[in-house]
Amino acid sequence: MTELVRAVYEIETALPLEQAAEVMAGEQSSGTFVAVARETAELKQRHRATVAAIEDLPPSGRPPLPGAAGDWSRARRGRVMIDFPLRNFGPSLPNLLAAVAGNLFELREVGALRLVDLELPDAFAEVYPGPAFGVDGTRKLMDRPDGPMIGTIVKPSVGLSGEELAALVTELAEAGIDFIKDDELQGNPPHLPLAERVAVVTDALKRVADRTGRLPMYAFNITDDISRLASNHDLVRDAGGRCVMICVTTVGLPGLHYLRERCELPIHGHRAMFGALSRSPQLGLDFVAFQKLARLAGADHLHTNGISNKFYETDDQVVASIAAVRAPLFGGYPTLPVLSSGQSPGLAPATYGMVGTADLLVLAGGGIHGHPAGPGAGVRAMRSAWDAALAGEDLDQRAGRDADLATALETFGRR
Amino acid sequence: MTELVRAVYEIETALPLEQAAEVMAGEQSSGTFVAVARETAELKQRHRATVAAIEDLPPSGRPPLPGAAGDWSRARRGRVMIDFPLRNFGPSLPNLLAAVAGNLFELREVGALRLVDLELPDAFAEVYPGPAFGVDGTRKLMDRPDGPMIGTIVKPSVGLSGEELAALVTELAEAGIDFIKDDELQGNPPHLPLAERVAVVTDALKRVADRTGRLPMYAFNITDDISRLASNHDLVRDAGGRCVMICVTTVGLPGLHYLRERCELPIHGHRAMFGALSRSPQLGLDFVAFQKLARLAGADHLHTNGISNKFYETDDQVVASIAAVRAPLFGGYPTLPVLSSGQSPGLAPATYGMVGTADLLVLAGGGIHGHPAGPGAGVRAMRSAWDAALAGEDLDQRAGRDADLATALETFGRR
Repeated sequence: MTELVRAVYEIETALPLEQAAEVMAGEQSSGTFVAVARETAELKQRHRATVAAIEDLPPSGRPPLPGAAGDWSRARRGRVMIDFPLRNFGPSLPNLLAAVAGNLFELREVGALRLVDLELPDAFAEVYPGPAFGVDGTRKLMDRPDGPMIGTIVKPSVGLSGEELAALVTELAEAGIDFIKDDELQGNPPHLPLAERVAVVTDALKRVADRTGRLPMYAFNITDDISRLASNHDLVRDAGGRCVMICVTTVGLPGLHYLRERCELPIHGHRAMFGALSRSPQLGLDFVAFQKLARLAGADHLHTNGISNKFYETDDQVVASIAAVRAPLFGGYPTLPVLSSGQSPGLAPATYGMVGTADLLVLAGGGIHGHPAGPGAGVRAMRSAWDAALAGEDLDQRAGRDADLATALETFGRR
Repeated sequence: MTELVRAVYEIETALPLEQAAEVMAGEQSSGTFVAVARETAELKQRHRATVAAIEDLPPSGRPPLPGAAGDWSRARRGRVMIDFPLRNFGPSLPNLLAAVAGNLFELREVGALRLVDLELPDAFAEVYPGPAFGVDGTRKLMDRPDGPMIGTIVKPSVGLSGEELAALVTELAEAGIDFIKDDELQGNPPHLPLAERVAVVTDALKRVADRTGRLPMYAFNITDDISRLASNHDLVRDAGGRCVMICVTTVGLPGLHYLRERCELPIHGHRAMFGALSRSPQLGLDFVAFQKLARLAGADHLHTNGISNKFYETDDQVVASIAAVRAPLFGGYPTLPVLSSGQSPGLAPATYGMVGTADLLVLAGGGIHGHPAGPGAGVRAMRSAWDAALAGEDLDQRAGRDADLATALETFGRR
C-alpha cells in the first residue's frame, strides 16, 4: 500500500479551486511548468501528489497576497487536502517541509495559502521518538504530581547580574514555584554567559532545596548555534540542572531534533518568531500543523500562548492550540502545553473553565514579578488562584482570606 | 563604545508610530507588561533597545493583521529603526533572531510588522566566516572564468531511476552545461537514496569529462536532519562531487552554519519555504534581511528568483534581491545569486539589461528540459542567448543562424 502524507491547506484563489489545487499538487511533486522528457505516465502514477478533497469556504474579503493571478472579485476560498506519496521524501522533517510547505507559498495561482494541518504516516514515529519526558516525566522531576505546574520567566528579561539572578531565583523557589525559565531573549550574552548563569542558578536552587526539600525545575535557554547545543546541554546536566530550553523557530525543527538525540533533560520549546509564520490568516502555518512537527522533533514542553494574552491571538485560538498539543499523536507524544503572555492569578478560573485540565505549565512573568509584595507573593497568589479554580471556589471568596491573592487581583485584574 | 544591531522594520499601526515603536523596543529588550523588581534605571540604560529613527510611509490600505489594537481608520505606516545592544545576545544568529524577530510579530500594538533589513556589527563577521567559495571559487571549480554560469534542475523533480538520471545528466554535460542541481523535492527518498544518486551522477559526469575535458558542478541536495548533514556531505566529497545543496529555511540558518563548519564544497542555498515568511507585505522578513543571515551562515550560492518568474515576485523585487546578494557584506561575503523559476533563453537580454552583471548562476528547468530537441539543445540555446545578450546582439538576429535558439524562442517566448 502506498504510504501517504496528507497536507491540509486553506487557500483563496481567483481560479476554480480544483485548478489551483492541481497546480499545488503538481508543483510540489512531479510537475514543472512544461512537460519534460522522461516524465512518463508511470512516473507520474508513482510520484504525483493528488488532490484528495476540496471543501468550499466563504471568501475572506481580504485583498489577495501580491502577485495573485486572475480576477479577485471572483475569489474562491476553500480547504484543500493533498496526498503526497511518502516515497517522494521519506520520513525526514526538512524534506517533508520542502514538499508540503516549499515553493507553493509563492504560486501566482493562489492569493492566500496556509498549511493548516498534516497527517503523517507511522514511518515518522519510527524515526522521531518525540518527547522523552512529556507531562508525566516533567511532573515527576518537579515533584508536582497533580494540579497545574506554576512557573515564571526571569524578569527583567535581560541584564540581571549573577547576584541579582540568584536572589530572584531564591525568592521564587522559597515561595514554592514549580518552574522558572530564562527569557527567550536570554541566551548566552557576554555580560552573564550561560556557564556562569547555570552555576549561579543551580547553586541558589540547591541551597533552597536543602532547606525546603523542593527543587524547582529551571529551564536554561541554551539556544545557540547547533555546534554548541550539546555542550550547552551538558553544562546544564553536569551542574544538576533539570531542563533546557530552545527557541524552536530560530534554531529550527532539525536543530530541536538534533538536541533531542543528545538530551538527557526535558526540552522546553519556546515559539518566539512563530508569529512571523502564522499571524497572517493568508499565509504560512497554523499552530496545529507546527505543533505536530515540534512534538515529533522532541519538544517536551511547547508554548501555546495563554488566555487573555497580551498578543494577538483570541482565546478560541489559544484553546485550540492547547487542545492540539494535548491530542495524542501516533497514540502518544505527550507534550506539555505552556501557557504564557500576560498571565496572572485572575485568569485561573477562566483558563480552567475553557481548557478543562490541569495538565498545564502556566507561566506568569509580570503577573508574578509585578506583585506589589514581591515575586514570592506573586507565586503564592498564582497557586492559590488555581487551587480555587480546581475546587470550584469563587476567586473573590478565596481572596477574602488570602491577602496575596487579593492584592494580585487588585493589581492585575481578573475575568 | 556600545556595539549595536540596527533592525529596520516596516510597521502599520493604529497607535502613534512613536508609541508602537517604543513597545517593540521594550518587548524585545528589558521590558514586560508591568514594571518589575530589579528593573533599575541603570539596567535599562545598559540593555534597552532604542528607537533610532522613524520615517512616515503612506498607509497600505490593507486591513490589519488579526488582533491589532485601535481604530484602523487612523492607521499610520512607517519605517522604524531600532538599535539593540549587542551585549544582550552576542554574535549568535539564533539569539539575534529571538531579539529582532521574536515575539514582536505577535504584538497587538501593530497591524503589520515586517523586518526589512539588519545592520550587524563586525562581531558577527568574526564568528561567521560566510561563503568559503563564493563567486570566484565557484567559477574556478566549474571552469567558467567569465560569462553567466548556466545551469539546470533535474526534471522531473522526483521519480527518475538511476539509469534515467545518468542518461539525463550525460546529455546535459555533453551539451556543455556548467551546473546541474537536484530539485528541492529530491532529498534522500527511498526509491533512489542519496548514496546511490551520488554514485550514479558522479560516475556519469566523469565519463563525459573523460571525453570532453569539462566536469559540470552538480549540487546534490543533502537536505536532511542535522545529524546526517556531515555524512551526506562526506559522501558527495568522497565520490568527487563538487557541490552540496540544502534548503536553508527547512534546515534552518543554524543548520546551514553547522554544515558550513564541516564543509569542503560550495554550499548551494535553496530558499524553498521562504515564501511563507515573506509573501505577505504585512508580516515576516524581507529577502534583503534574510540574505544577509544566509550569507553569514555560509551560503556560497543563494536563490533569488529570476526575471519573469512563474512565482509572485515582480521583476523589481527580483532585481533588488540580486543586488542585495551582490552587495558586499562586511566588505565581502561574495555569495553567488541563483536565478530560477520559469527561466528560458528569451529572458537573457532583459535579465542582463536589468541586472547588469554576468556574475550569475542562471537555472532553467523546464526552459532547458522542455526544449523540443531535448535538454542538450536547451543548454545550447541558453548559452547562445546569453552570449548574444552580453555582445549586445539582437536575439532574433542570433536565432537566424542558431536553430536551437530559434526553437527555444518559439517554444518558450521572449521579452
